[in-house]
Amino acid sequence: MNKITVYDTTLRDGMQGIEVSFTLQDKLAISHALDDIGVDYIEGGFPLSNEKEEAFFNQVKKEKFSHAKIVAFGSTRHAGKKAAEDAHIQALLNAETETVVVVGKTWKAHVEKVLRTDTEENLEMIRDSIFYLKSRGREVFFDLEHFFDGYRDDPDYALRVLQAGSDAGADCLVMCDTNGGVLPHEVEQFIREIPRDKLAPLGVHFHDDSGVATANSLTGIRSGAIHIQGTINGWGERCGNANLCVVVPNLALKCGYEVNMSRNLEHLTSLSRFVAEKANIIPEKRQPYVGIAAFSHKAGQHADVIAKAPELMEHIDGAKVGNERRILLSELAGKSSVLPKLKKYGKFDRNSKEVLSITKLLKEKENQGYEYEAAEASFDLLVRKHLDRYRPMLELDNYHLESYKTGDTPSKTVGRIFMRIDRRQVMGAGVGIGPVETLDAALRDALLPFYPFIEKISLIDYKVRVLNPQEAAASKVRVFITSTDHKENSWDTVGVSENIVEASWDAIVESFEYYYNTYMDKHKT
Amino acid sequence: MNKITVYDTTLRDGMQGIEVSFTLQDKLAISHALDDIGVDYIEGGFPLSNEKEEAFFNQVKKEKFSHAKIVAFGSTRHAGKKAAEDAHIQALLNAETETVVVVGKTWKAHVEKVLRTDTEENLEMIRDSIFYLKSRGREVFFDLEHFFDGYRDDPDYALRVLQAGSDAGADCLVMCDTNGGVLPHEVEQFIREIPRDKLAPLGVHFHDDSGVATANSLTGIRSGAIHIQGTINGWGERCGNANLCVVVPNLALKCGYEVNMSRNLEHLTSLSRFVAEKANIIPEKRQPYVGIAAFSHKAGQHADVIAKAPELMEHIDGAKVGNERRILLSELAGKSSVLPKLKKYGKFDRNSKEVLSITKLLKEKENQGYEYEAAEASFDLLVRKHLDRYRPMLELDNYHLESYKTGDTPSKTVGRIFMRIDRRQVMGAGVGIGPVETLDAALRDALLPFYPFIEKISLIDYKVRVLNPQEAAASKVRVFITSTDHKENSWDTVGVSENIVEASWDAIVESFEYYYNTYMDKHKT
Repeated sequence: MNKITVYDTTLRDGMQGIEVSFTLQDKLAISHALDDIGVDYIEGGFPLSNEKEEAFFNQVKKEKFSHAKIVAFGSTRHAGKKAAEDAHIQALLNAETETVVVVGKTWKAHVEKVLRTDTEENLEMIRDSIFYLKSRGREVFFDLEHFFDGYRDDPDYALRVLQAGSDAGADCLVMCDTNGGVLPHEVEQFIREIPRDKLAPLGVHFHDDSGVATANSLTGIRSGAIHIQGTINGWGERCGNANLCVVVPNLALKCGYEVNMSRNLEHLTSLSRFVAEKANIIPEKRQPYVGIAAFSHKAGQHADVIAKAPELMEHIDGAKVGNERRILLSELAGKSSVLPKLKKYGKFDRNSKEVLSITKLLKEKENQGYEYEAAEASFDLLVRKHLDRYRPMLELDNYHLESYKTGDTPSKTVGRIFMRIDRRQVMGAGVGIGPVETLDAALRDALLPFYPFIEKISLIDYKVRVLNPQEAAASKVRVFITSTDHKENSWDTVGVSENIVEASWDAIVESFEYYYNTYMDKHKT
Repeated sequence: MNKITVYDTTLRDGMQGIEVSFTLQDKLAISHALDDIGVDYIEGGFPLSNEKEEAFFNQVKKEKFSHAKIVAFGSTRHAGKKAAEDAHIQALLNAETETVVVVGKTWKAHVEKVLRTDTEENLEMIRDSIFYLKSRGREVFFDLEHFFDGYRDDPDYALRVLQAGSDAGADCLVMCDTNGGVLPHEVEQFIREIPRDKLAPLGVHFHDDSGVATANSLTGIRSGAIHIQGTINGWGERCGNANLCVVVPNLALKCGYEVNMSRNLEHLTSLSRFVAEKANIIPEKRQPYVGIAAFSHKAGQHADVIAKAPELMEHIDGAKVGNERRILLSELAGKSSVLPKLKKYGKFDRNSKEVLSITKLLKEKENQGYEYEAAEASFDLLVRKHLDRYRPMLELDNYHLESYKTGDTPSKTVGRIFMRIDRRQVMGAGVGIGPVETLDAALRDALLPFYPFIEKISLIDYKVRVLNPQEAAASKVRVFITSTDHKENSWDTVGVSENIVEASWDAIVESFEYYYNTYMDKHKT
């Protein structure tokens, strides 16, 4: 049995993650993106929990999906009630999804201390809930909460819980490591001990509290589970859930399992970033497979090997998951790192005079403290300027900022900028707390009438690094800025100066100019 | 054999990570922090690569470490040369460390295409380099680069490489997964196939490109390795290295291995954050064990269970790694961390009203963005103020700064400060490039006649962190300053504001006031 079902819980368990939140529109957009890439099941939420969740199910049932099934999530009926009369179970039916998930207890301590019922009634709650939902025509997945802790504590009871779910007709028994504490060798041992032949198919659901959610997922599948749960970008409660952006490529590209998503795996990186954009979370750069650093290489010598035989330096070809190789322009950069970046501007080889002069220029800038590995937009502008492909937006005449503070009152800054735009003299004014905020406000004030597009551009990340910290207050600073147009584009720029205001100014101006030169070029009338 | 050696490569492999960079002072401070927690080996860097690396070894040899050994990293000699005459090998000896690491090739394709030599000469390079370094009295670890890819490709050659290292006298054979592509089941299979009894002890070094570096590390140890390499916070090339903040607690708390760090594991969270501060990187919130979200629980039912039986909701007690449980979004009080800091001011216990009120104050300040983990001097001033043990140096009336720039000329800032010192009205004036430098100059100008000791104090490190980067130019910043009196004292202060000038002002003033309150107290006439 080599076909694995992928079950996404980004919209339910993922939403429990720190700083993760989605609007109803986000949830719908993400559902379609998950469907497009070929996810088999999409857990939409817990319809009983609040109105937004309920609204999602009301809306999603009107929309078409090419492959994925939307799933409603809920728990077993309450102790001492009937499933047919239980609010949880009714909410699941009201969601009108083809598939539902019922979560139930596996760990005796939880049955006794949290549900405050006995272990026999817990089994009855499971059987009754699943049987009733099956009788109403639903596909039913049974999530065994705390399965691994429960099994470690009392394997017999955990097996009875599995058996109860299976006997009641569950279509899949999903063993959950709710607290995230289990390690791969235990997962293997526990699953191998289960009498799989007598049970419904098995699934697994892991959390990353021990840093092994990916490995546990692989071990679960290798030990016989055929259904894998996780989230995009690994978001979820506490340390997060198993990351489908990592688990699925491991299964499909390295372990030879058949996964429906395989045919679209080259959209995985873009899916990861799309979901991050919806959550307004900066994508984790070091994320395996889909992170911006996953196929980036430093140093001249490495770049040389990469050019000749990339398979010697990369565990897979990043293109398979839609990621890109990046040669970082680090301190050790050489011609082989610069060359690929010039491709889009024409045909050059290692010895073209443009490659030599830009490599030299790059070293000079790096000696001044610039660092382009995380600021490719600024590097692109550097290249454009060098190749005469650069259209400036403005020319600075002067700026003047005044910061003042009296006693314990908050400080304040006022500023004005004079610049020329298309040979016209323009002034911008701004006020703010700190100098950077004020300068940004004054700059936008001056530019907006000439370049309405800047209204669409936001700065979403601002970083400051002190370059020669020993110089303390007189030290040089490097500012990185990440900007977005709130579609799919984001880009990074850098500024360096002994004056933080000036370093920020450079990075902000380049952020606008990069967009102007790159995107407005294509769209200009 | 249950004793595991922990080898940290944060300062070498970690430094290859995206956005990670340390100054010489950072590297020294981190070395001591690693020593304090009980790491066995600290890889300091690659002495041949640049002057900063060389300077580290020159400095570190003068310093005392209670347990850890500092290690210099380098590669095998060049093809066709003698180890005794090779620059790489000489650089290793010149580092004057008791232990050195030699990295060599295991994958035939790398020998042929990258080293451009033959597989026999590669074995000779390994033997000669290790043998020579052993003959010079060094403890020698042999890093087998691309071991797992090499073994997959040609097990016989990989075994000959292991044997060559072992025969030449290597004290540990470290199998490295340089490209990060191997999965746990392969790690287990490969290591089990190795004739361990005939070889020197084995170590493992993993990268996280497949998201399984932690699991591979555990599998490596469970399969017989006794030496584990990794970095703090899992930083390293591309997706990073095995994260010692996760691997070590797994080994020590869950697998029963003996690790020297076990006795100090409750400092692990603080170490993780300290190293992040030094790198000026926001600590990853979802990091297992040490992340701020690792033991955080959402409201309602969970909080109730947590209060009654935390072991039902948490895979371990977070206190074991120095982390804290957090309920809701409110950060839970850390009375146990406050208490020891008050010791020097008198006898207090967990329920003293001073402990309670300072804990509350600390939470308030943390909510505003203050962070005292790397700014103990500021925390000490906070305590002094609260206990009426604080002597202020000055009272600010107002400051006024003007920053201006015209065209391409460098920017300039002039400023003046009015303050009261001993009820006298004092003015200081300064000029500089940026506002922070100017403010520092004007402050010193005013203070010097009253406090000649400030001449002896220098700011040796200045760091800026943006707290809410999504607010971009309007974001809040946190400034850390390290100061020294050029004797044996150095101390750290913090300032937070939406205005970088004000945040810097606070940190600079506290830096002087800490010295004034702490050292001038003892020495005053």
